[in-house]
Amino acid sequence: MTRVRVESFSISLDGYGAGPQQSLEQPLGMGGPALHEWALPTRTFQKAVFGKEGGSTGIDEDFAARGFRNIGAWIMGRNMFGPVRGPWPDLDWTGWWGEEPPYHVNVFVLTHHARPPLAMKGGTVFHFVTGGIHEALARAREAAAGRDIRIGGGASTIRQYLDAGLIDELHIAIAPVLLGSGERLFDNTADLRARGYQCVQFAASDKAAHVVLQRQR
Amino acid sequence: MTRVRVESFSISLDGYGAGPQQSLEQPLGMGGPALHEWALPTRTFQKAVFGKEGGSTGIDEDFAARGFRNIGAWIMGRNMFGPVRGPWPDLDWTGWWGEEPPYHVNVFVLTHHARPPLAMKGGTVFHFVTGGIHEALARAREAAAGRDIRIGGGASTIRQYLDAGLIDELHIAIAPVLLGSGERLFDNTADLRARGYQCVQFAASDKAAHVVLQRQR
Ligand SMILES: NC(=O)c1ccc[n+]([C@@H]2O[C@H](COP(=O)([O-])OP(=O)(O)OC[C@H]3O[C@@H](n4cnc5c(N)ncnc54)[C@H](OP(=O)(O)O)[C@@H]3O)[C@@H](O)[C@H]2O)c1
Ligand SMILES: NC(=O)c1ccc[n+]([C@@H]2O[C@H](COP(=O)([O-])OP(=O)(O)OC[C@H]3O[C@@H](n4cnc5c(N)ncnc54)[C@H](OP(=O)(O)O)[C@@H]3O)[C@@H](O)[C@H]2O)c1
Repeated sequence: MTRVRVESFSISLDGYGAGPQQSLEQPLGMGGPALHEWALPTRTFQKAVFGKEGGSTGIDEDFAARGFRNIGAWIMGRNMFGPVRGPWPDLDWTGWWGEEPPYHVNVFVLTHHARPPLAMKGGTVFHFVTGGIHEALARAREAAAGRDIRIGGGASTIRQYLDAGLIDELHIAIAPVLLGSGERLFDNTADLRARGYQCVQFAASDKAAHVVLQRQR
Repeated sequence: MTRVRVESFSISLDGYGAGPQQSLEQPLGMGGPALHEWALPTRTFQKAVFGKEGGSTGIDEDFAARGFRNIGAWIMGRNMFGPVRGPWPDLDWTGWWGEEPPYHVNVFVLTHHARPPLAMKGGTVFHFVTGGIHEALARAREAAAGRDIRIGGGASTIRQYLDAGLIDELHIAIAPVLLGSGERLFDNTADLRARGYQCVQFAASDKAAHVVLQRQR
């Protein structure tokens, strides 16, 4: 059965999934790169993002790797896809990830601004969904054909799926940094416990504390 | 120079320093004991709270131990002192810690309800301060005579000292549990970064992630 998973989502000690002022120069917002220091050196990220062999093993790698296992489709917000805001001025922007993005499956991008699907090298196809989170999930579910769906982010997208009660499991990496502002993943009123989540796994490297929150049915 | 420190303060993944419904039976609130699973087995806590020799060593112990080093006075809120709310019905309640509390110095208890000082075995003297956080700090500073002041908690007390810009360093232990409600340490608007704090230390055991936040001057 398809599960809806958040994986390798990094937050700061004060709960931000991106710093303020996202831009072409600062995709993760100001201070944002510090969130991902645990992930970047790992074997999984080196391979997925830079196409390089090698990289670190250990706890961080274990969590990075599980995020790619059995994923049949991705969903992401338009801000994760790129820095363009408002109507697309042209179709030049094709994502942060170069010719061959690390997804290799159908990726559903939530946006208010329609755009034709975009087929990339290596099997990634970006679909731009203007019908909202339920439509994106239905299409992802069909595309995943029984495998899991990964909600990539950012914070705004995850929050919407959480609020709708649609996420089965979240792996969150807490990075030892204070961002002060930016995109917050949970707000004070997000009572995850009342929504049935429990922390079922906890492990930390010297770069991040990893927790897995799972909804108990 | 006296520094004002928060030490071994445990919070849940969702940011609570105590569960809901504190009472005589549940001093830490519902679910609260899970916050302290890292601390209880340590050598320092076994000795301090139960007077027992032995206990665990390692990362958790290292952080527990540092919390007692060079402390010349404590400050705590009345809810940390006990379950009595409102005017004192009598003076029978003398704290959670039995005849010989683990403080061994002057302890200043913030409260709206005056009460004479209470001298316990082993050097602990509880002073009940009705003049607010600045008065408590001034008295603690005098008592500490150059050593540091530990703000014991709970969340309400720490928040007040933070808001007043009076805390130099915080050691926070993040426990892998969701409490859902209770006493929150930081709220969404507590911008620690803007207040000059940085995370200067991070280490985790299999029971908690420890962070030290320090104000840069
Ligand atoms: N911490 C991590 O591990 C992690 C992971 C992934 C991403 N990130 C970072 O997170 C940041 C992006 O996060 P974010 O919270 O700002 O935004 P986001 O969730 O990526 O995207 C939000 C945008 O998507 C579109 N959208 C979202 N929901 C929609 C809906 N229901 N219907 C139509 N359109 C919808 C809207 O764009 P339009 O109205 O413009 O179309 C909205 O402004 C980036 O900096 C990224 O690098 C971090
Ligand atoms: N997580 C941890 O590591 C940790 C550490 C310590 C304690 N705790 C737990 O935290 C809980 C207590 O925290 P809390 O946030 O509920 O309360 P607290 O900070 O311990 O105490 C709050 C109370 O102290 C008095 N008070 C506070 N500030 C005052 C002021 N400026 N002037 C006069 N009186 C003042 C008031 O009591 P009155 O008006 O009734 O006098 C107020 O209701 C307990 O469950 C305790 O076990 C947890």
